[in-house]
Amino acid sequence: MEISLGKIAELVDGKITGDSDKDITGVAPFFEAIESDITYADNKKLLKRISETNAGAIIVPRDFTCDSANLVQTGDPRIAFAKLVDAFFPDMPLRKGISSKACIGKKFIHGDNISIYPGVVVGDNVTVGNNVVIHAGTVIENGVTIGDDIKLYPNVTILERCTLGNRVIIHSGTVIGCDGFGFAPEGEKYYKIPQKGIVRIDDDVEIGASNTIDRATFGKTWIKSGVKTDNLVHIAHNVTIGENTLLVAQVGIAGSTTVGRHVIMAGQAGVTGHIKIGDNVIIGPKAGIGGSIEDNQIVSGAPEMPHRLWLKVSKILPRLPELRKKLKEIEARLCKVEEDK
Amino acid sequence: MEISLGKIAELVDGKITGDSDKDITGVAPFFEAIESDITYADNKKLLKRISETNAGAIIVPRDFTCDSANLVQTGDPRIAFAKLVDAFFPDMPLRKGISSKACIGKKFIHGDNISIYPGVVVGDNVTVGNNVVIHAGTVIENGVTIGDDIKLYPNVTILERCTLGNRVIIHSGTVIGCDGFGFAPEGEKYYKIPQKGIVRIDDDVEIGASNTIDRATFGKTWIKSGVKTDNLVHIAHNVTIGENTLLVAQVGIAGSTTVGRHVIMAGQAGVTGHIKIGDNVIIGPKAGIGGSIEDNQIVSGAPEMPHRLWLKVSKILPRLPELRKKLKEIEARLCKVEEDK
Amino acid sequence: MEISLGKIAELVDGKITGDSDKDITGVAPFFEAIESDITYADNKKLLKRISETNAGAIIVPRDFTCDSANLVQTGDPRIAFAKLVDAFFPDMPLRKGISSKACIGKKFIHGDNISIYPGVVVGDNVTVGNNVVIHAGTVIENGVTIGDDIKLYPNVTILERCTLGNRVIIHSGTVIGCDGFGFAPEGEKYYKIPQKGIVRIDDDVEIGASNTIDRATFGKTWIKSGVKTDNLVHIAHNVTIGENTLLVAQVGIAGSTTVGRHVIMAGQAGVTGHIKIGDNVIIGPKAGIGGSIEDNQIVSGAPEMPHRLWLKVSKILPRLPELRKKLKEIEARLCKVEEDK
Repeated sequence: MEISLGKIAELVDGKITGDSDKDITGVAPFFEAIESDITYADNKKLLKRISETNAGAIIVPRDFTCDSANLVQTGDPRIAFAKLVDAFFPDMPLRKGISSKACIGKKFIHGDNISIYPGVVVGDNVTVGNNVVIHAGTVIENGVTIGDDIKLYPNVTILERCTLGNRVIIHSGTVIGCDGFGFAPEGEKYYKIPQKGIVRIDDDVEIGASNTIDRATFGKTWIKSGVKTDNLVHIAHNVTIGENTLLVAQVGIAGSTTVGRHVIMAGQAGVTGHIKIGDNVIIGPKAGIGGSIEDNQIVSGAPEMPHRLWLKVSKILPRLPELRKKLKEIEARLCKVEEDK
Repeated sequence: MEISLGKIAELVDGKITGDSDKDITGVAPFFEAIESDITYADNKKLLKRISETNAGAIIVPRDFTCDSANLVQTGDPRIAFAKLVDAFFPDMPLRKGISSKACIGKKFIHGDNISIYPGVVVGDNVTVGNNVVIHAGTVIENGVTIGDDIKLYPNVTILERCTLGNRVIIHSGTVIGCDGFGFAPEGEKYYKIPQKGIVRIDDDVEIGASNTIDRATFGKTWIKSGVKTDNLVHIAHNVTIGENTLLVAQVGIAGSTTVGRHVIMAGQAGVTGHIKIGDNVIIGPKAGIGGSIEDNQIVSGAPEMPHRLWLKVSKILPRLPELRKKLKEIEARLCKVEEDK
Repeated sequence: MEISLGKIAELVDGKITGDSDKDITGVAPFFEAIESDITYADNKKLLKRISETNAGAIIVPRDFTCDSANLVQTGDPRIAFAKLVDAFFPDMPLRKGISSKACIGKKFIHGDNISIYPGVVVGDNVTVGNNVVIHAGTVIENGVTIGDDIKLYPNVTILERCTLGNRVIIHSGTVIGCDGFGFAPEGEKYYKIPQKGIVRIDDDVEIGASNTIDRATFGKTWIKSGVKTDNLVHIAHNVTIGENTLLVAQVGIAGSTTVGRHVIMAGQAGVTGHIKIGDNVIIGPKAGIGGSIEDNQIVSGAPEMPHRLWLKVSKILPRLPELRKKLKEIEARLCKVEEDK
């Protein structure tokens, strides 16, 4: 594929300095690009080394100039670049329609332009919108409702009555709507508490591979709009995840916890049940959160503490043997002083 | 659905105070219930606030009384409530029989009243009992034996020769009988130790979504009766899990470890291999267990320690910078004292 | 099955002391073996107790002798035993050919002796070599290339354009080539960075159950030859894993990190992004690695530290309350000394 720099500038709402007729045939990272590629530089470090890329053109911030290269000035070079990647690597063409090797239940209602791949199984009373792609091996159970512009990767499982909004992406191996882990002790045994609620996933959510999102006991487990989860994330029953929150790989959130909007939880963090994580909170990797967190806090560690404090604590931990030795030495000196009195 | 309070009392073996003819149409949590719902209160906190629920009837402990509401007195209100949830939310009707879009191997032996959904693949020499439901996309390999009253959710995998008892539930994405992680070093390379044992799952076990339970090298990995696991739990080869043990989400148990009965492991805990966890042990969230634990202990932390000690330690951790400062201050004062002698 | 000791010695390149005509009918661990079994002893502890096994023959190191038992002396008894396990427990016979209930895309190119099971879905332009087994429910997307002597267990997902070398085993539930977790902030929202690279898996790799291995943003996520992963391992985009590295269960590795050769990461360890782990590094269980590690180091803890130091630190942690008390006591004594001056 060949796109002229002029056309590229249009695509990303940018301004050209240099040769607008130049043809670009690919995209590549800064140090890997060749003469026919476009790349981007969005931080001072790279902008200083602008002469070191072999790219034929560079997307830069609006206020950056340089005579020796073809530039496309934009508001956000990284997002502009992402748009170009989509332009240069269009998705492979889809099989259109419903495969004869898919198995569709009764009362299936669907919009236009859907792609249902071989080996998909759809239950009864399922509704899907326009531009829905359901890849091979995915199972949709009875009563599920799915919006427009959806991509379900292969081997996804969406269980009874769960709902998906618009522009939702769900990666392979993920299970939406499995039972919450609810049991009442009955002597040494456990009696299963029926899990009758659903999972509701709002617009613009992307769920990574092999996540498990439990249905609510009653009501809903709720993933609000713009949430993005990485792989192997566990979200328990009756949890709410606020808008535009990021959950990094292997995070686990226990039942009935409410997570605010625009939160970031780093990898392998764990959050206990029945607490409230405020808006804009950042939780460090491997943190173990045992209590509610106010808005706008950055916390780390297990048990959690303010992140700056954790940085100090984590520097002292490897020095504990030294500290202990020092304490013993001081005690010995003190004994001597006491004796000498 | 409408069930009279009299009928409800029968279902849960309870005694009514109030209007036994009252019709109930739903179940709901204490603060969400409306006039046509029944709810429950099983602790002092809720029982004190009994006037604050709008529920038309309340399930309470046998010794609780109150004139202003319709009560159903029972032995265990939570379990009684769970039974009513099942009554009010019956499972969706099942497709009966073996779907023509399932694929069944040779010498399939099965009991009465089975439901095998489209897209299921069953290998050769598989035996299943009565009232077995196998949902779409689930794969059962050769030689698997399955008891009565079983529910396998979609996209489960049960590998060669594994066995399931009666009343077992397995949630989506779970893999039973994958190879144990066994390799012998051969220079810098590794030679695969064949994994020829099985996984044996006993009666009344419920396995959460996306668990991985490895087959034994020889013999069996054994999940004893009444065990319940949450999502994304890993159980390695030759592990034994005792009766009525709970494993919360993202727990990992390494090879050849024996876990006692009625144990609870909280979320993200990890247990090393070749050790013994006693009966009735409770292991805290994110704990890292490096050695055997006696019966009836509560442990937390990594490395593990008695839970009460861990609570103290975890309060000191954020104060380490302060402690270090104090130590320095004391040393300075001691120096002064020494000089002044 | 019956194999004479003479034949066994041939199979494992060993030398017999004792009865080479003796017939062996099974393999078993040292203390479980019966008279018709062969077992092995590869360490001093077992070799001292050689008279305590009931096995009819014992595989031992080349330099070990003993008159009272039939011995097979070999270079590596454990590997010799593993080979015998394979001989006594041959894999169940495979369905040969492509099942009529599999669904194969356009331009499928394949070698000899392939087994494609019912319910498999293969996309367009897929190439597989000789002796390839693809079990039920596995999905291979467009443009995937797979070498010789491959075993894909049920319900595996291999996404667009990924490549597998020769002698690769992938266990059930694993997803190869899901999107990396890449988003650019756009106000409070996130813009998806397209993930256009692939996953490349080299020869002799074994990937455990329910792993998630992300495709690169550009270029490749690269699993080099001889790597073995346990279950529920997460490998993010643009990661490279060096030759013969072991990743134990529930390990997570963040984006763009490079792991050296012959590394071992123990269970539940986590590694941050954009760092370099040297060759022959050993990382302890639950370690949280925040920075690059030089070759040949053994590290543990979160934050990571040399393993020997971690052992000391982990012994002091449970004694922190004691240390704190001691510090208070010393301060009180010091005050007294100061007053008495």
